[in-house]
Amino acid sequence: MANSKYAYVRNYELPDPLLPGCFLICRLDGHSFHRFSEEHGFTKPNDERALKLMDHAAMDVMTEYKDIVLAFGESDEFSFLLRRSTNLYNRRQAKILTTLTSYFTSCYVFHWSKYFPDTSMRYPPSFDGRIVLYPDERSVRDYFSWRQADTHINNLYNTAFWALVKQGGKTTSEAHATLRGTVSAMKQEILFQRFNINYNDISPRFKKGSVLVRVIPSERSTGEKKKRARTRTEVLHCDIIGDEFWMARSFILAG
Amino acid sequence: MANSKYAYVRNYELPDPLLPGCFLICRLDGHSFHRFSEEHGFTKPNDERALKLMDHAAMDVMTEYKDIVLAFGESDEFSFLLRRSTNLYNRRQAKILTTLTSYFTSCYVFHWSKYFPDTSMRYPPSFDGRIVLYPDERSVRDYFSWRQADTHINNLYNTAFWALVKQGGKTTSEAHATLRGTVSAMKQEILFQRFNINYNDISPRFKKGSVLVRVIPSERSTGEKKKRARTRTEVLHCDIIGDEFWMARSFILAG
Amino acid sequence: MANSKYAYVRNYELPDPLLPGCFLICRLDGHSFHRFSEEHGFTKPNDERALKLMDHAAMDVMTEYKDIVLAFGESDEFSFLLRRSTNLYNRRQAKILTTLTSYFTSCYVFHWSKYFPDTSMRYPPSFDGRIVLYPDERSVRDYFSWRQADTHINNLYNTAFWALVKQGGKTTSEAHATLRGTVSAMKQEILFQRFNINYNDISPRFKKGSVLVRVIPSERSTGEKKKRARTRTEVLHCDIIGDEFWMARSFILAG
Amino acid sequence: MANSKYAYVRNYELPDPLLPGCFLICRLDGHSFHRFSEEHGFTKPNDERALKLMDHAAMDVMTEYKDIVLAFGESDEFSFLLRRSTNLYNRRQAKILTTLTSYFTSCYVFHWSKYFPDTSMRYPPSFDGRIVLYPDERSVRDYFSWRQADTHINNLYNTAFWALVKQGGKTTSEAHATLRGTVSAMKQEILFQRFNINYNDISPRFKKGSVLVRVIPSERSTGEKKKRARTRTEVLHCDIIGDEFWMARSFILAG
Repeated sequence: MANSKYAYVRNYELPDPLLPGCFLICRLDGHSFHRFSEEHGFTKPNDERALKLMDHAAMDVMTEYKDIVLAFGESDEFSFLLRRSTNLYNRRQAKILTTLTSYFTSCYVFHWSKYFPDTSMRYPPSFDGRIVLYPDERSVRDYFSWRQADTHINNLYNTAFWALVKQGGKTTSEAHATLRGTVSAMKQEILFQRFNINYNDISPRFKKGSVLVRVIPSERSTGEKKKRARTRTEVLHCDIIGDEFWMARSFILAG
Repeated sequence: MANSKYAYVRNYELPDPLLPGCFLICRLDGHSFHRFSEEHGFTKPNDERALKLMDHAAMDVMTEYKDIVLAFGESDEFSFLLRRSTNLYNRRQAKILTTLTSYFTSCYVFHWSKYFPDTSMRYPPSFDGRIVLYPDERSVRDYFSWRQADTHINNLYNTAFWALVKQGGKTTSEAHATLRGTVSAMKQEILFQRFNINYNDISPRFKKGSVLVRVIPSERSTGEKKKRARTRTEVLHCDIIGDEFWMARSFILAG
Repeated sequence: MANSKYAYVRNYELPDPLLPGCFLICRLDGHSFHRFSEEHGFTKPNDERALKLMDHAAMDVMTEYKDIVLAFGESDEFSFLLRRSTNLYNRRQAKILTTLTSYFTSCYVFHWSKYFPDTSMRYPPSFDGRIVLYPDERSVRDYFSWRQADTHINNLYNTAFWALVKQGGKTTSEAHATLRGTVSAMKQEILFQRFNINYNDISPRFKKGSVLVRVIPSERSTGEKKKRARTRTEVLHCDIIGDEFWMARSFILAG
Repeated sequence: MANSKYAYVRNYELPDPLLPGCFLICRLDGHSFHRFSEEHGFTKPNDERALKLMDHAAMDVMTEYKDIVLAFGESDEFSFLLRRSTNLYNRRQAKILTTLTSYFTSCYVFHWSKYFPDTSMRYPPSFDGRIVLYPDERSVRDYFSWRQADTHINNLYNTAFWALVKQGGKTTSEAHATLRGTVSAMKQEILFQRFNINYNDISPRFKKGSVLVRVIPSERSTGEKKKRARTRTEVLHCDIIGDEFWMARSFILAG
């Protein structure tokens, strides 16, 4: 009616379907979380409460969207893998991307007080997101290796950096200077020699990040039972660069 | 290093710049808000608290993103107009889209208790979003006319519908049946004759939606003062279909 | 200089890279070739000269663009497969698409008189093109199966149709009516019973289409020799739906 | 039938509609025309036969595609402007782009012998193409100003360069060295002082390029007559940077 004379503006909405036959990875990143973590007193180099809150939000997202078969989180970012053949929202890019980003953000704010009971949220945080298509198993695995290698590299640097600052009494620029050009072994050496920290003893959560994955159904479960098991999600802090993780969960990369 | 052998996966991230010279409209929509509004006892046909919460979140978004020159909200949706020449995030589509969607969502959850002090949020709500490009002033104005005409049509229908149900004792299917095929004048007549409701007396907020716009600097203010005025935002419930609104604010559609 | 004040218009040219890791198939189709074939007296149901001209143009395209590993043609269409890892023109879509389309068209007109020495070209023909991404071997093979199955179906129909018209004295609408609803076996029966045509005896070119593929280097050739062999192209009219063709040429789908 | 089991591969063909409300400019460029012009003995700095052949091909394209309202050519490139509201092929990008590119190429080869009666074509030339969207009149005009300014700059350089080489006896590297860093006035001075060439006397075709535009219907013609006039195209070599050209032809940029 009155409306129809304006309704032509809908023609400017263009279709944005994602290529079929590809895996979708949606990665979310905290927006200005450097400032956000300072304003809310996050522990350095890692704040377990903040990481667990991220995991909780990611877990909610996986519970809501069954086509997510794997998620990986570190620091203020989380990556979600949607199975190759997903037809979520007819693979419309903006719809998938914004729904996941929005729901994750919502869960993060919603659950805040469970993890920070004594710190009220001072202002609303936000996340940006992107979807990247990966056409084959190899590139999907390399994607997650890329993120987990990044977790390790960052964590080792940050652990050494904050040891130098907090225990070693260095300024932040001195600490950066000390670490400039050092390889992994040297950083581990610094930790051990100067601060008696054995990097191997550091929590796997910090070294490996968080791996959210559907529970493997036990050998004996069948049919409906199997399906239900597959919809439960667990949080692991294990290696996902090697083959073992993937071989035990062939359903992740299955057609 | 260890990282570089996997870093090639970044090549799968493709550029997504939006065409220069076009206005950007980002529209957010509540995801499954029918259920969300029921679970949280939203008043029918309009819940002023819920609408004000939407406005508050939108206001925060405009305060944060100066390139938004106008926003319009109704029910569980909000549209944001970014000025034609915006270079926000180098006009990268996913970045703009997800940041706005995420921040709006975050603000909605963050401010919830201010508007619903007695109703705790039962689960995290979410919003989907899309960006549409409009190349000229005419299509931008028609876009907002389209949304405001929609506000009016929906509100009139819902007002009549809930009067029939709440005051008239009809079932919801009877109410739908009564209204089927009626034009605006007939719905207004039903409201007046049966329920003594003069549609003209309904709150402009419900009939016109919420218009968020930068304050017009007064004649006398200049330079820095003018700029500061322009960065303050006000909430109006006025007509945006006619020329008056736009003529008084030529900066909205300016190059 | 004088130029630079206008050069900003280049900013409206947006990047269009194709997703890495996917096979590219570029399919060209004759534009209004129904009319073109009539105006130039193409033989029905198949004109061998016209098909050979198509093959020649496609052969030229493959000679020029080494990343094309396979081509398939039937009637007035040709499909080109570019290897998964091609970096031709940095995988820019419009560049690849238009260059192939233009060069094919150019070759078609250029070689016309070799195949139609007695028929001068009355007006310039044209082709449209599209590029489609296929992420895996299975979908690439199914693509070519789809085209070759189409070749068979069309050829059988057209062979029966023109037999009914030319030898059977039917009008074209009578011929269509006769064939409506018939399955393959019935069409073959019509050909054999009424016109003594054994469909098996029809030229493989008509039944299978044209398959252009790099020559398989012989067992004994090595190094440079092997490479040179691989750059020669041959025209086959063989089955590409079964496994045999592909197993003998694993390089086509190789990473 | 047999076909349907493979037909799913069509799902990989994604829609590619161009934004409504924008002008479309399709620019074609000769592919490796440096070599092509040498192999076919094009006159330097400008070959009138080659330019006229380009114009002829462009004219054919405009005759075939009525939604093209303007074309501009120089050297081995041609730009076509499609009217803002064109619905050619439902604004599908690849379809429009490839059809125009293919038809232009076809016409170029087809008409070759009319312009080069004594030079047989040695190999098939090709063109690449791109479509760029321009949202408003200003950017469309600036686009054409950009191309015509480019024509002038290139032609002045080339005219001076080839005078130095052909009449001045310089090597090509000496000629480049002579012109390095010179502004327009200096190049004109060189032409006049050393070779007695008044740049103003150079053919407008070389200085201004080719402007193909629908004929302006005379004042007196009406209705059907007017429409027919508008479908005739003429080749001009006039200025299109100033206002005059556009004011006399308001239909070009009309909604």
